[in-house]
Amino acid sequence: MTEQGIVLFAHGARDARWAEPFARLQRLVAARLPDAQVTLAFLEHMTPDLAAAAQALAAKGVTRVRVVPLFFGRGGHLREDFPGHVARAQAAVPGLVIDVTEAAGESDAVLAALADFALAGLERA
Amino acid sequence: MTEQGIVLFAHGARDARWAEPFARLQRLVAARLPDAQVTLAFLEHMTPDLAAAAQALAAKGVTRVRVVPLFFGRGGHLREDFPGHVARAQAAVPGLVIDVTEAAGESDAVLAALADFALAGLERA
Repeated sequence: MTEQGIVLFAHGARDARWAEPFARLQRLVAARLPDAQVTLAFLEHMTPDLAAAAQALAAKGVTRVRVVPLFFGRGGHLREDFPGHVARAQAAVPGLVIDVTEAAGESDAVLAALADFALAGLERA
Repeated sequence: MTEQGIVLFAHGARDARWAEPFARLQRLVAARLPDAQVTLAFLEHMTPDLAAAAQALAAKGVTRVRVVPLFFGRGGHLREDFPGHVARAQAAVPGLVIDVTEAAGESDAVLAALADFALAGLERA
């Protein structure tokens, strides 16, 4: 049986309050997929990193993980840094199947939600 | 008559390709509110900054602008840096009415779209 894990992978920040929306998102996702293990991981400034998150998930029996980069755009962090993080996670847990999605900000549906947010109350009926 | 402007305010990055989703978002928003002036502005690495964007909008007749921070969380950038950017924009265009929204990632609807994205194809029918 495949145990599914989801890693919500974000940049990280020095201010702990920065992570509040990600914690809300983790709860949202976990509530909708109760059989899955859902965790956060961070590129820098916050822990766990992706390798530590992968190890923790594997210790809970996860065999397949989806890594979701919560970034708007694909700049240096995703193009240059992220592949190394994925490689280190894979090296840390060789048997783990790791799938990686596109960046959240590249999703048409996410962009549509951002457009709704930007326009709230401004569009004429 | 109030001429509405919208500034989609993002972090900025050294890699120009990072801004692609923001350019898509700008087109989406502009298409839905054709009477408004919609522009991007950046905290760092990219131009224009918020003050330059405000000046450019005012030069096009904009009298009221909504600034939409395209950030997931409220860390140092939004808590410490952003107010100064808004103040400089206001100083650059004293007559401009500047409204600021919450961070995009604090919106329930945006978080719901991110959850949909994270879960795509994993939820059982």
